[in-house]
Amino acid sequence: MSKKDLALGVDIGGTTSEFGLCKADGTIVLEEEVLTTDFKSADELVKEIYKRIKNHGLLDRIHGIGVGAPNGNFYSGTIEFAPNLKWKGIIPLAKLFSEQFKIPAVLTNDANAAAIGEQIYGNAKGLNDFVTITLGTGLGSGVVANGKLVYGHDGFAGEYGHIRVVPNGRNCGCGRKGCLETYASATGITRSIKELDSKHKHYSKINEFKEPHAENVFQLADEGDEFCTEIIEFTAKILGDALADFACFSSPKAYVLFGGVSRSGKPFADKVKAYMEDAILNIYKNKIEIRISTLHDKNAAVLGAASLVWSEL
Amino acid sequence: MSKKDLALGVDIGGTTSEFGLCKADGTIVLEEEVLTTDFKSADELVKEIYKRIKNHGLLDRIHGIGVGAPNGNFYSGTIEFAPNLKWKGIIPLAKLFSEQFKIPAVLTNDANAAAIGEQIYGNAKGLNDFVTITLGTGLGSGVVANGKLVYGHDGFAGEYGHIRVVPNGRNCGCGRKGCLETYASATGITRSIKELDSKHKHYSKINEFKEPHAENVFQLADEGDEFCTEIIEFTAKILGDALADFACFSSPKAYVLFGGVSRSGKPFADKVKAYMEDAILNIYKNKIEIRISTLHDKNAAVLGAASLVWSEL
Repeated sequence: MSKKDLALGVDIGGTTSEFGLCKADGTIVLEEEVLTTDFKSADELVKEIYKRIKNHGLLDRIHGIGVGAPNGNFYSGTIEFAPNLKWKGIIPLAKLFSEQFKIPAVLTNDANAAAIGEQIYGNAKGLNDFVTITLGTGLGSGVVANGKLVYGHDGFAGEYGHIRVVPNGRNCGCGRKGCLETYASATGITRSIKELDSKHKHYSKINEFKEPHAENVFQLADEGDEFCTEIIEFTAKILGDALADFACFSSPKAYVLFGGVSRSGKPFADKVKAYMEDAILNIYKNKIEIRISTLHDKNAAVLGAASLVWSEL
Repeated sequence: MSKKDLALGVDIGGTTSEFGLCKADGTIVLEEEVLTTDFKSADELVKEIYKRIKNHGLLDRIHGIGVGAPNGNFYSGTIEFAPNLKWKGIIPLAKLFSEQFKIPAVLTNDANAAAIGEQIYGNAKGLNDFVTITLGTGLGSGVVANGKLVYGHDGFAGEYGHIRVVPNGRNCGCGRKGCLETYASATGITRSIKELDSKHKHYSKINEFKEPHAENVFQLADEGDEFCTEIIEFTAKILGDALADFACFSSPKAYVLFGGVSRSGKPFADKVKAYMEDAILNIYKNKIEIRISTLHDKNAAVLGAASLVWSEL
């Protein structure tokens, strides 16, 4: 029998899901991705990941499985009513993985997994109080206070993306209106292309894209496109304003931005920081950093999910 | 030398400050109050409390001092820029008490002190995840997650009263606009008398009061006064809406309402709960209780502040 030296980390996203085999020191042995939207059920996705790892001949080396997923519940091992996934209802994802691979599996919120990854391997090393903000298809958050992840009484703490920041604002997948993630996320930015009014809109180069993505908006803003610059400012203001208020929760030392939108880098983080400082309560002024994840290439969520295996199983 | 069997618990409020001598089992040996607004400086208030306890001949029995104060900082022992106190700037309150009494003193946010009191002696016994909401002159909050108070990196976590809930709303003492406490607090309710429009306003009995208080509004609402009923609904809706969103932070098992406004009792708590359920994210529905502090008579804040002595000194 071979050595069980690997943890399987799986990060389920609204658009893509990544998985990786990681050693305890953070070395990633294998990392691949699949399109989440390709799979009609979670079970099919689990089987596909199993097949791929089997093909690499690495099944025997896996000690356990850690999964990060939208609305993932640490206590029950289920995904429950995830607005950004096609799979509806309550899905026993930890059980599905565990049964398919015949090894233990543990599951948490994808943003919580990212927070653990960030704390152990990334840009939150040594911090006891910080919050990761995942800017992907939606907006996820992982809250660490007193050095520990805040799960809440039911495992669902840290849903900053569904705090309503605009009264009667944009319709959200959760059935409510004005949630932060309808503005500050990749999807939110593409909605802003349609929904923001501007005198610069009609001649913006973004109109040349049939299905523009958030990264196109960042790219064009860099090139001086005025409408795209407005969208970035609008997004940064809503996010900065929100993070200012959210400081009143846990007074974190840092917000660590993570995911697609944050890859646009320091200029966006600096804008968010400036708007946050404008709006923040006196006692928090000039204390809270906006950091960008250093784990993008290594994938904090996969590493974080994998690290659950070593800490929890 | 006599036995050091008592902790001095002090609860500094915007209007009144209470202090008590408590045994470790929660028995209160002495409890008195002073008007905070009577004292031009914190030092004078400390001296007054010292004088009173000296007059009772109980100085020798005090083991240590625990203080709960608005914007009180656990790490530094100071009050910093408290919007609801006349004393401005940074006040080394723990040091002032310690030097006056010649015994150790520890300080925290008044709402944090209430949360500890509630957890040890009150309506949050056995809960690892809950939030106390203090509805007094302002709105304070004490957040307990994973069984521990959330202090944040700088000691200033849990300022739910200064989360902005109405864009460009009421001016707040903190210099910002629309903070929750400008609506949901005793002061907020009296502001609503002036600032809320209603066709029932002109004939409301509240107009007969020269300086109406929140309790008058509750009393008249109970008697069927339509304008006062509207104010209560308005207040409950803003608070319930806010608590719905705040669930996204720590997903508490319960919010424990505490302080003057909550003394109006279960009907108000039920309204807040109903509005909270209307607005809350699916995954939290019908899970979070609104409880009312059971420690009003015994004073959770004084007990909580005193309990700091046994836990921290």
